[in-house]
Amino acid sequence: MSFTELPLEKAFMLLEPGPVILVTTRDAKRDNIMTISWHMVLDFTPSFALRTGPWNHSYEALRKHKECVIAIPTIDLAETVVSIGDCSGVEVDKFNRFDLTPLPASVIHAPLIAECLACIECRVTDYVKKHGIFILDGIRAWIDPARKERRTFHANGDGTFVTDGRKINLRRFMKDKVPPGV
Amino acid sequence: MSFTELPLEKAFMLLEPGPVILVTTRDAKRDNIMTISWHMVLDFTPSFALRTGPWNHSYEALRKHKECVIAIPTIDLAETVVSIGDCSGVEVDKFNRFDLTPLPASVIHAPLIAECLACIECRVTDYVKKHGIFILDGIRAWIDPARKERRTFHANGDGTFVTDGRKINLRRFMKDKVPPGV
Repeated sequence: MSFTELPLEKAFMLLEPGPVILVTTRDAKRDNIMTISWHMVLDFTPSFALRTGPWNHSYEALRKHKECVIAIPTIDLAETVVSIGDCSGVEVDKFNRFDLTPLPASVIHAPLIAECLACIECRVTDYVKKHGIFILDGIRAWIDPARKERRTFHANGDGTFVTDGRKINLRRFMKDKVPPGV
Repeated sequence: MSFTELPLEKAFMLLEPGPVILVTTRDAKRDNIMTISWHMVLDFTPSFALRTGPWNHSYEALRKHKECVIAIPTIDLAETVVSIGDCSGVEVDKFNRFDLTPLPASVIHAPLIAECLACIECRVTDYVKKHGIFILDGIRAWIDPARKERRTFHANGDGTFVTDGRKINLRRFMKDKVPPGV
């Protein structure tokens, strides 16, 4: 568990496939983690959208402190990730309960998660209240190049998940849709 | 290629895993199809967010006619799906060029795609101009129960894609996070 910097123009690639992600926040009391599948890429700079609301304890910290870390878990962490989503930061110190290691981020106060494949430090630049959508700017990204397990997983919504399978290269069908630097 | 109705409360499950999707629109001239990975679930009713803008030919039809069909392709269609994303509906009749079969939807004018695993008829209920986000309400959903290939695929953003792998059941770790009806 040792992060090296990932060029920011590649950071959107972590969310583009739609995996289950973790989002860390820090407020005065303690660090918190939420599990979420409701996210999408908005552009390659990178910026992201995240759908959550007041029913989620992290919502307050996102609105107040306007920053978070997106962390990408892999399938060896699947049970932990789902369990993180099944309890609330109101009652639980999630780093402690799930034996995860908070690492200091470089720019923001919310922590990286050492056990994850990659992390993106993000600033909340807007909140679309009408639809409960947070707008995030990714400002620095980290990846663990030595990690053996690199397969992420995707929620089906019914308590089952699908793990990454075979990789296929279709770049020859994309004349001009691959952004610079990736 | 024969669709039967999918209960609407299960329709969010088609987008929850974050696959590459197709979106059909109809305007006065002809039907069009776009390929997109920038989508997320907003709630279980279901409603969805879709990020696109004026650079995409489908944008005008979405804004004007306020409806579309989300179609879920599987890995046997991967080359077609990527090629659809690599040309513009301004010049190309995509159903014709890619030998896809438009089927009439039940409520809206944009067509279903017979070759896909599933389709969701959607109304555009809002457009968040500042961030280029379309808000969609799913109003009727269809699935092909007989289709053999059911694995979807996910974009990595660099012209490679990851196919669905193994399914894991973690429902035992989710006490109350599975919505009714799924």
